[in-house]
Amino acid sequence: MKLTPRQEEIIKLVKEKQPITSEELASKVGVTRAALRPDLAILTMIGVLDARPKVGYIYVDKPSQGIVNDYISGIKVHDIMSKPSFVKEDVTVYDAIVLLFLNDVGTLFVVDDEQHLIGAVSRKDFLKIAMGGTDIHRVPVGIIMTRMPNIVTVNENDSAVDVAKKIMTHEIDSIPVVERVSSTDDKEQLKIIGKVSKTNITRLFLKLSNNKNNI
Amino acid sequence: MKLTPRQEEIIKLVKEKQPITSEELASKVGVTRAALRPDLAILTMIGVLDARPKVGYIYVDKPSQGIVNDYISGIKVHDIMSKPSFVKEDVTVYDAIVLLFLNDVGTLFVVDDEQHLIGAVSRKDFLKIAMGGTDIHRVPVGIIMTRMPNIVTVNENDSAVDVAKKIMTHEIDSIPVVERVSSTDDKEQLKIIGKVSKTNITRLFLKLSNNKNNI
Repeated sequence: MKLTPRQEEIIKLVKEKQPITSEELASKVGVTRAALRPDLAILTMIGVLDARPKVGYIYVDKPSQGIVNDYISGIKVHDIMSKPSFVKEDVTVYDAIVLLFLNDVGTLFVVDDEQHLIGAVSRKDFLKIAMGGTDIHRVPVGIIMTRMPNIVTVNENDSAVDVAKKIMTHEIDSIPVVERVSSTDDKEQLKIIGKVSKTNITRLFLKLSNNKNNI
Repeated sequence: MKLTPRQEEIIKLVKEKQPITSEELASKVGVTRAALRPDLAILTMIGVLDARPKVGYIYVDKPSQGIVNDYISGIKVHDIMSKPSFVKEDVTVYDAIVLLFLNDVGTLFVVDDEQHLIGAVSRKDFLKIAMGGTDIHRVPVGIIMTRMPNIVTVNENDSAVDVAKKIMTHEIDSIPVVERVSSTDDKEQLKIIGKVSKTNITRLFLKLSNNKNNI
């Protein structure tokens, strides 16, 4: 966003003389109040200036934060989620690690035969078991996975901000995006329709900055 | 950012009738062109409308992208970097993994006795060696690390956008922030003063959205 020289001059004057009325500003800039009105409207609108009734204009230190905030808050999980990788709980830890490398992901989601979420296992979990001297060719993933309901999930209509907050608060590598379904025995189950990791947030950050090349 | 009812009306009219001149807009809104000028200036400024000379106003689909972009581009690496974890290259893989867990990081940077960067080793590297049946109590980190000059680095004055781009392009977990120093034998070396990972970018994204709680 490029400000005009006159708008820059107004900001400079407000910084020096605040609070300052539109009459004073107009006289210093050397134009009429009416001529100044569009500039003041713009600067107030984008949050650079704050207009205080019966006091005058005040300079606001963080311009455009409000707009950035509004823009970011509108982004939803389904705009940024990617495809999850699945594994069954009776697969050996070794085979699961191979799958992790082949799919180039950091987390596998463990599902039952009806594709319902029952667990999650991360690179960190795998490293812990692999360094411990356990025979990873015999131990199944079900033994080391984090099991439901101890898995933080999000819905596709949640905001990207909410999922980023959960990722940071719970120190999670990858959050499953789920929807509720009824299973055959009428128990409520979760079906995984996507995942969001710090990689998705980083990619979103790049899109926000408008550099979409090579991503 | 809250638009006024009249500004909302103008946007609606432009969407329906574009391209539309300010005369036509003024007559439809029922005010003079002069009265409409501040609103049109604001809407053009924030990028909701585009003013085409001799054609009229056009609706732009992605308002405020320009402002978001400008704001983000000003953030530097030194604003978001965090403390790196170091290891010497003769430390065993086992001890290095222990250090990784104790420091709760995803990457260790390998330094020589003068603290110059010579390599990096990630959770992925450790997992690969640990699953392979190698005796991780005997193999030193120096054997499995990625060695200089094959390490992507950034400087503290680079923009956060540049580092995010490198993280995505090179699929890196954690980028070392370095400064050039002269070593005792006058060879140019790199000293690590910080690191940036997807965690830092996710934290930055949260700050941009103004939700600073619990981070």
